[in-house]
Amino acid sequence: MLTVMGALDLAATSDVVEARFDEPRPADFALTGRAAGRVVVLGAGVAGLACAYELGKAGYECTVLEALDRVGGRNFTVRGGTRHTELDGTQQQAAFSRDQYLNAGPGRIAQWMVTLDYCRELGVPLETFTNVNADAYIYREKDGAKPGFPVRRRAAKADVFGYVSELLAKATDQGALDQQLNPEDKKKLLSLMRSFGDIGKKIPGDPAKSWVYHGSDRRGYTVWPAAAGSKGVKAGPLPTLSQVLASEVGKEFAFEQDYKQAMVMLQPVGGMDAIPMALARAVGAGRIKLGCAVSVVTDRQDRVSVRYRDPSGADQLIEADYCIATLPPNVLARLGHNLGPAVQKGLTTFEPHNAGKIGLEYRRRWWEDEDRIYGGITETDLDLEHIWYPSHGYHSPRGVLVGYYNTGKKADAYSALSPGAREARALDQGMKIHGPKYRTELANSFTIAWDRAPYIEGAWQKIPHGPDDPVYAPLNQPAGRVYFAGDWLSHVVSWQHGAFVSARKTVMALHSRVMSTAA
Amino acid sequence: MLTVMGALDLAATSDVVEARFDEPRPADFALTGRAAGRVVVLGAGVAGLACAYELGKAGYECTVLEALDRVGGRNFTVRGGTRHTELDGTQQQAAFSRDQYLNAGPGRIAQWMVTLDYCRELGVPLETFTNVNADAYIYREKDGAKPGFPVRRRAAKADVFGYVSELLAKATDQGALDQQLNPEDKKKLLSLMRSFGDIGKKIPGDPAKSWVYHGSDRRGYTVWPAAAGSKGVKAGPLPTLSQVLASEVGKEFAFEQDYKQAMVMLQPVGGMDAIPMALARAVGAGRIKLGCAVSVVTDRQDRVSVRYRDPSGADQLIEADYCIATLPPNVLARLGHNLGPAVQKGLTTFEPHNAGKIGLEYRRRWWEDEDRIYGGITETDLDLEHIWYPSHGYHSPRGVLVGYYNTGKKADAYSALSPGAREARALDQGMKIHGPKYRTELANSFTIAWDRAPYIEGAWQKIPHGPDDPVYAPLNQPAGRVYFAGDWLSHVVSWQHGAFVSARKTVMALHSRVMSTAA
Repeated sequence: MLTVMGALDLAATSDVVEARFDEPRPADFALTGRAAGRVVVLGAGVAGLACAYELGKAGYECTVLEALDRVGGRNFTVRGGTRHTELDGTQQQAAFSRDQYLNAGPGRIAQWMVTLDYCRELGVPLETFTNVNADAYIYREKDGAKPGFPVRRRAAKADVFGYVSELLAKATDQGALDQQLNPEDKKKLLSLMRSFGDIGKKIPGDPAKSWVYHGSDRRGYTVWPAAAGSKGVKAGPLPTLSQVLASEVGKEFAFEQDYKQAMVMLQPVGGMDAIPMALARAVGAGRIKLGCAVSVVTDRQDRVSVRYRDPSGADQLIEADYCIATLPPNVLARLGHNLGPAVQKGLTTFEPHNAGKIGLEYRRRWWEDEDRIYGGITETDLDLEHIWYPSHGYHSPRGVLVGYYNTGKKADAYSALSPGAREARALDQGMKIHGPKYRTELANSFTIAWDRAPYIEGAWQKIPHGPDDPVYAPLNQPAGRVYFAGDWLSHVVSWQHGAFVSARKTVMALHSRVMSTAA
Repeated sequence: MLTVMGALDLAATSDVVEARFDEPRPADFALTGRAAGRVVVLGAGVAGLACAYELGKAGYECTVLEALDRVGGRNFTVRGGTRHTELDGTQQQAAFSRDQYLNAGPGRIAQWMVTLDYCRELGVPLETFTNVNADAYIYREKDGAKPGFPVRRRAAKADVFGYVSELLAKATDQGALDQQLNPEDKKKLLSLMRSFGDIGKKIPGDPAKSWVYHGSDRRGYTVWPAAAGSKGVKAGPLPTLSQVLASEVGKEFAFEQDYKQAMVMLQPVGGMDAIPMALARAVGAGRIKLGCAVSVVTDRQDRVSVRYRDPSGADQLIEADYCIATLPPNVLARLGHNLGPAVQKGLTTFEPHNAGKIGLEYRRRWWEDEDRIYGGITETDLDLEHIWYPSHGYHSPRGVLVGYYNTGKKADAYSALSPGAREARALDQGMKIHGPKYRTELANSFTIAWDRAPYIEGAWQKIPHGPDDPVYAPLNQPAGRVYFAGDWLSHVVSWQHGAFVSARKTVMALHSRVMSTAA
């Protein structure tokens, strides 16, 4: 039977198929009499840089205008000395130690994402990013967890799997599923439940004592097994079925199967901004104008004009054959333009979604030394949402935790505070899990509130009906000579993959038009 | 309810407790008139080196006798140029490229293991080892899988979780578990099943269409989601419940919850032998005599005599106050000794268990470039058992796969072959999963058959009744002035942790005796 399954599943298992990308090449222009032309790209985030990079390979003359004094956009790695000014003028300068950093924006890459192809092509070294750790904690306060008593993920998982298996085995063995299961299915299912949940055997004649989950060494130990004479003490006591269900810890286990979140995941060595830095090097620093905020985009019959303010404050005009606008739609919507009401309607239909993070640098890596947590994420229902432990630099003198990574209203609540008050709140919350050391060992911190980041003003876009919603159609095609690209025009919003694939699509469309235009 | 659970679970969650180790210190001898004394350690594997290291810290004069020309024992990292001769004289010399290696013995470390404490103390840099990868394959031939059609782990997992959830939700909703579940439990369980298996809703009045698993994007995509207009093509088609149960793929998912195997796991950067190398440096090279095979151990009233053959072939005698024997018990049992029949009985009650590995160096990392597998393990029912993909060096020009890591009879079958025939068999099997590239891209290989490794003769010991079985009591205490240590005298056999904790126990016992002996 698996043969059939396998045979039909060929494309899913033996090949990884990506959306088609026909890379423009210099050779495309040979003997055609056509030239690659000039392109002005708005925004040096991942989408903008990827457009300039791919077009540049084929000989297009690209100029990238970037309002900030750095490339990368939301791909922003904070290191010691990094300065950041929020919309209201609030300033921070990171005091992280050498080799310490915070990926304030994207922090992980799934194996299937095109982002990795760019890392390969550009020589960006990668390492494993740990997204799920059996030894990290789950802390759900509204279910009754009290400060100082988080639950290890491995214990919660063993209990959920154990009780689920016990219940399903009992129901199956008692005939409740005879309509769904033939005798062979039943036998296989009961056998599966034994290993799936580490449950006890059938006790003939005693249904109540059959298939019982009695706990499991999967829960971990309070004293780990050691030498002869020290077989260890299993973590206990076992919560009851009702306790496990009431706690809702089981809902944590969908995450690790999510197609974007399932491990293995990866990160560039030394910080996520290695990607935009490598793209920028490949594009050529001379083609990227930092500190240049665009004000007006004008589509003309034969060219595009873009007005911007240069770093000296002077107004400048750049003209090109085409423009690719990769700024966030909420920012684009505020520019002056002549692209028409349908474009404006599309841009204003997006809704920025907020997210925030704090990087907490500690004087020692107590989460490794004491909690034995080497990377991964503690999941909570606190307003900090997640605590990330670093997947690199194990046992080094210092480390940076992500003390909150929250979104939506929780992010708004932190954003409304000063950086110092954000830190205080993050510590108050995190201490519930990690105790006093969470405060006493802190060296310094740095926060990002994406809604307050100039020229970005949001973490990503909410797109309830997806990017193929007709309201976005005017953005998924050129408006005259102006094209659009960004993760917000992809099915993988908020991921660099989305920015890359959108950039590729736009590059193909633009190049295809150039190649089909009379020479 | 979780409060109770949490409160009672304190030790399990907030603290990691290890078996007690009172480290001997030079200060212990101050003012007592006692001296640390001389200790001869048999074997420079992890247990032997750890004994010499810990005793050395307190001032004991240790001499470590090692039959091989390297330290580490089964902790053996093979690099380009590494030579290995099997018991029958079969020779191999590894042709791996620079920076490529095979951990022929231990390859992973769990977060709770004492091994990590030694890495911290000795400055051995660590990186993440990926033990489970959603994008690696499952290939079970006896269930009907055909060459070229492995299943992605993420697809198999989604299906198992999906159908398990569907069945349990149906049974629950139909009242089959009303004896086990109160109404609140039922509500919570049904809600849990929806997220646990990504199953459909209840359709009121239609039990057959309620709670149905219709597949899930957790299975992955044949064309991954990309830009607007490319929402992706989900991997399909969905196998039926009977097909999934018949395939027994569900049995793979116990592994990732095992208390020794659950991620995060770690490895030293550059090869596992960084651990014995660091231990050896700390012990002092002058205290470790390589190429010295022990032949006779004699316990005397006031000292221990150990006879050995030095690298020139000459017979030598070394005397010490104490001896710690850390050779594998099957090897120890063949030495001449006067430790009595109970010791001999203990030693011969262990049964060596075999394991083997092949390192396959490839000219390119096709598993990353084409299969999008960045580390982790493909699980099979083939005689190669597992294929490991490297968790490091992503996107570098070459890489070494573990082409088989098998144990018991499967390992014996490969061991009986020449290294070339082992390679041929590994390729024949592995091609069923990876196709022709598995052969055509191979650069070179190196194999280990632990049963044929001189002075080791086995991967680890089978200990059906555990190390506290009375038959081993004579080894868990000194035989006169001779002590024993090794993973085989621990509850964590075959792991370095076992060797370390056994060494610690023996060091404590020996030091305690020295301290309680009249000065």
